[in-house]
Amino acid sequence: MASLTRTVRIEWGDCDPAGIVFYPRYIAMFDHSTTLLIEETLGARKHQLYRTYAFDGYPVVDNRARFLKPTRFGDDVVIETRFAGVGRASFKLMHRLTLEGELAVEGFETRVWVVRDPGHPGRLRPQPLPQEVASRFAGEAGAMDSPEPAR
Amino acid sequence: MASLTRTVRIEWGDCDPAGIVFYPRYIAMFDHSTTLLIEETLGARKHQLYRTYAFDGYPVVDNRARFLKPTRFGDDVVIETRFAGVGRASFKLMHRLTLEGELAVEGFETRVWVVRDPGHPGRLRPQPLPQEVASRFAGEAGAMDSPEPAR
Amino acid sequence: MASLTRTVRIEWGDCDPAGIVFYPRYIAMFDHSTTLLIEETLGARKHQLYRTYAFDGYPVVDNRARFLKPTRFGDDVVIETRFAGVGRASFKLMHRLTLEGELAVEGFETRVWVVRDPGHPGRLRPQPLPQEVASRFAGEAGAMDSPEPAR
Amino acid sequence: MASLTRTVRIEWGDCDPAGIVFYPRYIAMFDHSTTLLIEETLGARKHQLYRTYAFDGYPVVDNRARFLKPTRFGDDVVIETRFAGVGRASFKLMHRLTLEGELAVEGFETRVWVVRDPGHPGRLRPQPLPQEVASRFAGEAGAMDSPEPAR
Repeated sequence: MASLTRTVRIEWGDCDPAGIVFYPRYIAMFDHSTTLLIEETLGARKHQLYRTYAFDGYPVVDNRARFLKPTRFGDDVVIETRFAGVGRASFKLMHRLTLEGELAVEGFETRVWVVRDPGHPGRLRPQPLPQEVASRFAGEAGAMDSPEPAR
Repeated sequence: MASLTRTVRIEWGDCDPAGIVFYPRYIAMFDHSTTLLIEETLGARKHQLYRTYAFDGYPVVDNRARFLKPTRFGDDVVIETRFAGVGRASFKLMHRLTLEGELAVEGFETRVWVVRDPGHPGRLRPQPLPQEVASRFAGEAGAMDSPEPAR
Repeated sequence: MASLTRTVRIEWGDCDPAGIVFYPRYIAMFDHSTTLLIEETLGARKHQLYRTYAFDGYPVVDNRARFLKPTRFGDDVVIETRFAGVGRASFKLMHRLTLEGELAVEGFETRVWVVRDPGHPGRLRPQPLPQEVASRFAGEAGAMDSPEPAR
Repeated sequence: MASLTRTVRIEWGDCDPAGIVFYPRYIAMFDHSTTLLIEETLGARKHQLYRTYAFDGYPVVDNRARFLKPTRFGDDVVIETRFAGVGRASFKLMHRLTLEGELAVEGFETRVWVVRDPGHPGRLRPQPLPQEVASRFAGEAGAMDSPEPAR
């Protein structure tokens, strides 16, 4: 499946009085990596995607993270994000954040493809992924037979 | 002019590796105090105000802050916010954040009353403050005969 | 086991362009609730606890959250936090965030009681929970003969 | 005087329900730009600088920002940061954030070079800038005669 790797400099404002990253900040970094991966995989920016596919977002419905070692102000961490599963109206992602090659944080997300519910202003409801989106997230049909990425 | 005072517990996640509040967090606290003051002064919640007065927000166009002494995790700071001036389409606010009675941070904001520009999607343009809003911000509410805004 | 319930007003700055809470903000709210619960359970503020128990923090090593329904700017949500398990050097917490009685977000955390590693500056290592702390987290405080921690 | 220019992609989590950057986020971006400029000007990372110059930080004591036009999720903004003045124990910075060449936000900061006060744990006190630091911030002595950067 498709993946995206980027390097992030840990900022002073990301860190807490213990001198390490305040952990909700990792979750925000993973959120941005997910958007960058989706944009790269579908070949357009998020606001263009909204128009192309007539949908209203891909909110997280379940997330999990394991924090194995701390990272600190000034560290250049590497975040690798990949699709980990594609369902009818949902998809999964995995994030691996490493520092000098060592795994520091692992993240897992399940997101749902949603549209606004015309009958209930302010409500969102799941909608099946467009076929093209599902195929691209899955790395084109052929890739579906490949084993899970090693962990 | 009207004012609002609230106590805020400084959170672990508000602080940086020096153990003191990361200063953009103060600006976010002031933003929330401004909304609470406006809601109290006009007698309704922000999303209700949008409907009552048919406007689209009051973004900051100028802000300034002076940081006189640091505050830390666990401190209970007091934020006092007041209107400091009312113009045709803009208004000013002042914030005083104290710790045990000593001034720690002072903030100043100028905000503009805006509506969406129908001719330019995504653009906002200034609009004169409704008379009732201007009067209440200026603290002359008592002199007014107009009814309460619907809630 | 002990629990703590608090009401949190969702702020404008907590929300994203979809008008709903940007989900890492929930994780930050849960972090603060955990500290408030620990402070209440042990009868002292976090920085005092550091001295009383000669430890250096309780970082999260594993967290999970489920997002069942969105909450929005101006909502008053209720967060109930409780201990969900106490081990030798770790403990678990559960958070339930509700809006008008309906469950909106559920959170689960595992934290480790740590001290600085004198042999490796900047490193933290797990240390068994003090007996008194473990008992109080487990809700057996009443059975204890030990005096209150100094405040 | 020395300057640093970087491009920042506006993230979903930087934006508020109006779809524009929540303005305290700009202040955090400026803070990171300041650190990058100082690191580049002095040729070392912040934590190394702490050791080289035996100081404890450069907190902001005064900041101001003007918000001229909004920026939005997905925008690639350019932030140019430069020293704007060097005093005995303090220095000033200017930030210009542009979108497609148009000025969107201007920021101004005064920072103080501080050390921990050994007589008062937890207190910081101003200390004169080391001569080498002052010269580099000022762009080497000769540059001191040059006029203010055009605005």
